[in-house]
Amino acid sequence: MSRTPNHLLTATQEALEAVRSTASLTHCITNSVVVGFTANVLLAIGAAPAMVDIPEEAGLFAGVASGLLINLGSCSAEQQVAAGEAASAAGTAGTPWVLDPVAIGSLPVRTALAYQLRDLGPSIVRGNASEIMALAELGAGGRGVDSTNSVDDALAAAQSLARASGGAVAVSGATDVVTDGEIVVRLSNGHPVLTKVTGGGCALGALMAAFAAVTPDALTGAVAATSVYTVAAEIAAERSALPGSFAVALLDALSEVTVDDLSARAVIA
Amino acid sequence: MSRTPNHLLTATQEALEAVRSTASLTHCITNSVVVGFTANVLLAIGAAPAMVDIPEEAGLFAGVASGLLINLGSCSAEQQVAAGEAASAAGTAGTPWVLDPVAIGSLPVRTALAYQLRDLGPSIVRGNASEIMALAELGAGGRGVDSTNSVDDALAAAQSLARASGGAVAVSGATDVVTDGEIVVRLSNGHPVLTKVTGGGCALGALMAAFAAVTPDALTGAVAATSVYTVAAEIAAERSALPGSFAVALLDALSEVTVDDLSARAVIA
Amino acid sequence: MSRTPNHLLTATQEALEAVRSTASLTHCITNSVVVGFTANVLLAIGAAPAMVDIPEEAGLFAGVASGLLINLGSCSAEQQVAAGEAASAAGTAGTPWVLDPVAIGSLPVRTALAYQLRDLGPSIVRGNASEIMALAELGAGGRGVDSTNSVDDALAAAQSLARASGGAVAVSGATDVVTDGEIVVRLSNGHPVLTKVTGGGCALGALMAAFAAVTPDALTGAVAATSVYTVAAEIAAERSALPGSFAVALLDALSEVTVDDLSARAVIA
Repeated sequence: MSRTPNHLLTATQEALEAVRSTASLTHCITNSVVVGFTANVLLAIGAAPAMVDIPEEAGLFAGVASGLLINLGSCSAEQQVAAGEAASAAGTAGTPWVLDPVAIGSLPVRTALAYQLRDLGPSIVRGNASEIMALAELGAGGRGVDSTNSVDDALAAAQSLARASGGAVAVSGATDVVTDGEIVVRLSNGHPVLTKVTGGGCALGALMAAFAAVTPDALTGAVAATSVYTVAAEIAAERSALPGSFAVALLDALSEVTVDDLSARAVIA
Repeated sequence: MSRTPNHLLTATQEALEAVRSTASLTHCITNSVVVGFTANVLLAIGAAPAMVDIPEEAGLFAGVASGLLINLGSCSAEQQVAAGEAASAAGTAGTPWVLDPVAIGSLPVRTALAYQLRDLGPSIVRGNASEIMALAELGAGGRGVDSTNSVDDALAAAQSLARASGGAVAVSGATDVVTDGEIVVRLSNGHPVLTKVTGGGCALGALMAAFAAVTPDALTGAVAATSVYTVAAEIAAERSALPGSFAVALLDALSEVTVDDLSARAVIA
Repeated sequence: MSRTPNHLLTATQEALEAVRSTASLTHCITNSVVVGFTANVLLAIGAAPAMVDIPEEAGLFAGVASGLLINLGSCSAEQQVAAGEAASAAGTAGTPWVLDPVAIGSLPVRTALAYQLRDLGPSIVRGNASEIMALAELGAGGRGVDSTNSVDDALAAAQSLARASGGAVAVSGATDVVTDGEIVVRLSNGHPVLTKVTGGGCALGALMAAFAAVTPDALTGAVAATSVYTVAAEIAAERSALPGSFAVALLDALSEVTVDDLSARAVIA
């Protein structure tokens, strides 16, 4: 399959229309800080969120959902069990699933869980550079949720993880990078104010799950979600680059962003 | 008691004033996705929210609150215990309480809990058509949180539940229906963008608890909360029908909505 | 150290710049209702939030964070353990930490935990008058999260608590009071609509943790956070005093508030 920037742009446009026409049923096990914002991001783009995160339900639901996000940002004991159930069920059902290893490295509970989930072969891993390096066991992690490494520092780790999982790995930063272990795609949209909204990154993981449900492969899903989200963020930042009103404008922009906006603005290389 | 549309409108107007003058102390056990938005909806209308959802506190608090909501959207093990405590205490104290059986049907933990709570006689049950049919054991549930049935499909189930509980049942949809098993009230305000805000329905359950605290019976409480909320949603949608700014405008509109707005806009039949 | 109002204003201005230049790493164990809003408040002011609230991680993180908030608003069993771990670790590491004893008094689980944490010597205690009186065992608590006592009622309790902990105690109200047991500082900025936003008070506790990390003592940290927050609230209320749009404007104002705004508006006595 061709992976030229033009092909990826076309695939992104098709994926946006498919998420909206099918209302991708997106199952999220995510942290309490961002769970409401994440659901609103999914609704705004036209997907159907379902935050089923308790044992005995999460595995069952992952088997019927279109896509699954597991985000480790504040994982209670029940969420830890639910995450294991859901990842296994997604694997069995062939449901694409995203792992977001928030703030792993020095925090022992989430780090151990992240390694277990990594070994189940997530379709997409999404994180900042420090998180990706820690997941590949090539770094010590960042400062809380903030990366202390650059995206380029993490490229080898991302490629290594992707080759091991057979999926894609996305590293967020001023330029976002997505790789399947061979191809390296760089996306240069977005705005710094996105880092001033809690869940600004976590919600992108949920979008990747929604998009991977309608794309032929994980790399395309990660690229499409990133491009749509960061293009919408640019549009929103033109309305306001202050954090409160930007977050509101981002939801509005996600509900309005068009394939023509992607043609005009998406920077994929 | 008369239940003509005119009587219900007058009762709704009196209830709005009473919620504000008494600041109904509204106890919520609800899911982590919508808990913040729900508290903000209650504050905006003039009620006093209290999200007490742990064992050994929830039962105690339900005995002193004016109204109680139990929403099963993401029920942790502790919330499951707290819900049982609170429902029992509300029954003993005569506190009106609302059950919102979110996404029951195929998800086993919440479904079993919903049946137990149903049998304790909730003052109001609120849900979409698929949830109401599943609670009455007349359907298989919906697609995640989305209904796959119409409101009219659920009418017989709603009436059956209401007769069993002695309370009221509210089915949400483009037209909302409230019944006490005999009378059927249809409310036709609102705006589709409300379904694009997470907690758009869950917050209405909390408002029903606040309003049932100041109305003579459960049916009136459910009607009043629905009418006030959906009229405010119409006003907000005139400011913006995009999901981010609509959610903000909805809170603003709830804080400003007047009895005259209800006279001018409420469609109760 | 001098504590004249002029000195405190200067110290507040220096603290605002220091929070922004160092991006105070602020560890929060807080309730699910307000956790997202709290993180957004911290991001808006320029701090770095980290909501690490599970056992085996919370103690570890408190040892490396710049400041810590423990808020008891909806404390799950895991959060209760995490709070004990984190308070102990903060004490050992010399990390300033804030205790917000939300709604204690008649609710037994949080009240018992609050007494335990109080005896570990929090740097700052923050609450409304009823909560402060209950923590000093001089009152029965309020009505849910609302105070039934005035700030002046609570002054003796606040001074007693501060002398026992060796830190500062802040009592929120129309006029906010901060004391270290000897000095009593009164701050008279803010706007009533702040009480119509859930987390309006809880987020101030998080700011106190961020500011105490960069001030020479706890009293100054509590004063600085209160002054910056309530001045920003005034600025925001000039844009909108309706609850939905005010909350958005507050985040915007926190990101923009300057030392000159403090000179022009802060009322510290």
